[in-house]
Amino acid sequence: MKKNENSILEFIARGQGSDGAGRARGAGLRVGIGDDAALWRPRAGYEAILTCDWFLEGNHFLADLHPPRSAGWKCLARAVSDVAAMGGEARCFLLSLALPESRTEKWLASFLEGLGDASGALDCPMAGGDTTRREQVLINVTVIGECHHGRAILRSGARPGDAIFVTGRLGEAEYGLRLLHSGDKRLTMREPRLQKHLYPVPRLEVGAFLARRRLATAMMDLSDGLSSDLPRLCAASGVGARIELDRIPCVRIAKQDSSGKFDALQMALDGGDDYELLFTVAKKNVALVPKAIGPVAITQIGEITAREEVALTDENGLSRPLKNKGWDPFR
Amino acid sequence: MKKNENSILEFIARGQGSDGAGRARGAGLRVGIGDDAALWRPRAGYEAILTCDWFLEGNHFLADLHPPRSAGWKCLARAVSDVAAMGGEARCFLLSLALPESRTEKWLASFLEGLGDASGALDCPMAGGDTTRREQVLINVTVIGECHHGRAILRSGARPGDAIFVTGRLGEAEYGLRLLHSGDKRLTMREPRLQKHLYPVPRLEVGAFLARRRLATAMMDLSDGLSSDLPRLCAASGVGARIELDRIPCVRIAKQDSSGKFDALQMALDGGDDYELLFTVAKKNVALVPKAIGPVAITQIGEITAREEVALTDENGLSRPLKNKGWDPFR
Repeated sequence: MKKNENSILEFIARGQGSDGAGRARGAGLRVGIGDDAALWRPRAGYEAILTCDWFLEGNHFLADLHPPRSAGWKCLARAVSDVAAMGGEARCFLLSLALPESRTEKWLASFLEGLGDASGALDCPMAGGDTTRREQVLINVTVIGECHHGRAILRSGARPGDAIFVTGRLGEAEYGLRLLHSGDKRLTMREPRLQKHLYPVPRLEVGAFLARRRLATAMMDLSDGLSSDLPRLCAASGVGARIELDRIPCVRIAKQDSSGKFDALQMALDGGDDYELLFTVAKKNVALVPKAIGPVAITQIGEITAREEVALTDENGLSRPLKNKGWDPFR
Repeated sequence: MKKNENSILEFIARGQGSDGAGRARGAGLRVGIGDDAALWRPRAGYEAILTCDWFLEGNHFLADLHPPRSAGWKCLARAVSDVAAMGGEARCFLLSLALPESRTEKWLASFLEGLGDASGALDCPMAGGDTTRREQVLINVTVIGECHHGRAILRSGARPGDAIFVTGRLGEAEYGLRLLHSGDKRLTMREPRLQKHLYPVPRLEVGAFLARRRLATAMMDLSDGLSSDLPRLCAASGVGARIELDRIPCVRIAKQDSSGKFDALQMALDGGDDYELLFTVAKKNVALVPKAIGPVAITQIGEITAREEVALTDENGLSRPLKNKGWDPFR
């Protein structure tokens, strides 16, 4: 049967899984999908975190390259990453979806599977959204999160002398993207080297830990690459930074790929889509930062400086400016 | 100077006007544009209303037909209309904007003027958003509203015997759209007949009045047309409706247009984009509903029935089913 707007909305609502209603109530949702708007009850003593993110076919994913399941997972995961970057918990999300009629069946079902997986894993049920028709798939996700009032970690609190940390390994998503673009027929969507690109995991636990302990002076997530994002954190804080090259936890290039095609350092500096956290900690508190939280490594990579420039120091102590070569859609 | 993502974000933030920061604080925004996410403090005793809306070039507006100022106004006004439809107040909004580089100067400035006008008029400051590049302008607006806990008016509360009301005149937006499409060179963007289409005004005061007095048993806004939207309200409430044709407050066709080209009743039934309110009131409370609130007329047009069908009754008492011919992007 040909789908219309009402039946697509029903299909999307059903796609949220059998535990969707229970999770929705747990998230404080009194009215979810199906009315003019959702009704959500914030908790006393908490602030709401509001964020939205584009995820567009042609810009952020390609229909012939990316499985719809990945699109479903990633559109939510990357928006939730902004909540992690404030030190908050995700509570619920709104999905705005535009798609061609040809994708309202199999593609949509698989997309909703990935979205449902992310929604379950990140404890963030769907609250509502908007659906329309378009030749290409357009996605916009709004996430509502929460944190204790006054505990959110902003970009603006870094001070000279603070240590700079990152979670995970940088450049892994870029590595996956390049492998996917290589057209290697032996790659399956289960290939471990592709997972960070296809199914990134926002660092909610690390962010919440840092907010709870009041350990981080500033934080943001790495969505466009360290060389784009670190200057933003510095600008917001009115400071500079010195990064030590040999401390950066770079993506590990697999043996079969070590043909000089992949520059791990360059991918770690300029690759986007990692959704790792970048944060700063006052010198006196550095020892309180664990080496890892769960499976997620935490690595000190440098120091905040008073001089408003971002520099890279190599193993010989030589410094050069960090050039902003990360992702910018208008470049 | 060529704009990049950072400078476009600054341009957008500045476009929110000199009173933007003051209004933002008033709305409970502790952190707005510029961080990973916004921080918003809900008021004690209130629920949050969450809604988002597409506004896409090619679908919802045309670059060569619609002034950018109208696009800026309308993208926010129509999203706020969902808050009015719950009986709430708008608090703040997130703007997701994708646009080609050629529109980052004059077009964007004019768009932001219209958006700023709506933001001021609707008391709804910008809290944040996301910007990227795209060949066509894509807009998604998320609005966060509030209402006293338990006072929101849902679609699902209509009961047999309830009176059905609408605000304003129906079909006015469709009339404006058709005039605009007619290519009449004498039309200016100030032409009164175009205003409802270009600059719709969400019925926040009427919605809030009904919620405060607990007068409406069900409510929604008319975005796709009465013939599409009334069946949705009926389905959500598990009821039917009988509308009296001669009671429908139809758009008034100007003398110069009375050439048979414009069917006021058809436009009132099937025309979208009016953003008037459709609501139901228990019979015993009908006398408590005013004839108008401010400049906005309120008209009783029919009655909720137990039989689950939506019928139109003409002046001779003859009934026929109301055919769903409103806007459906998948039709």
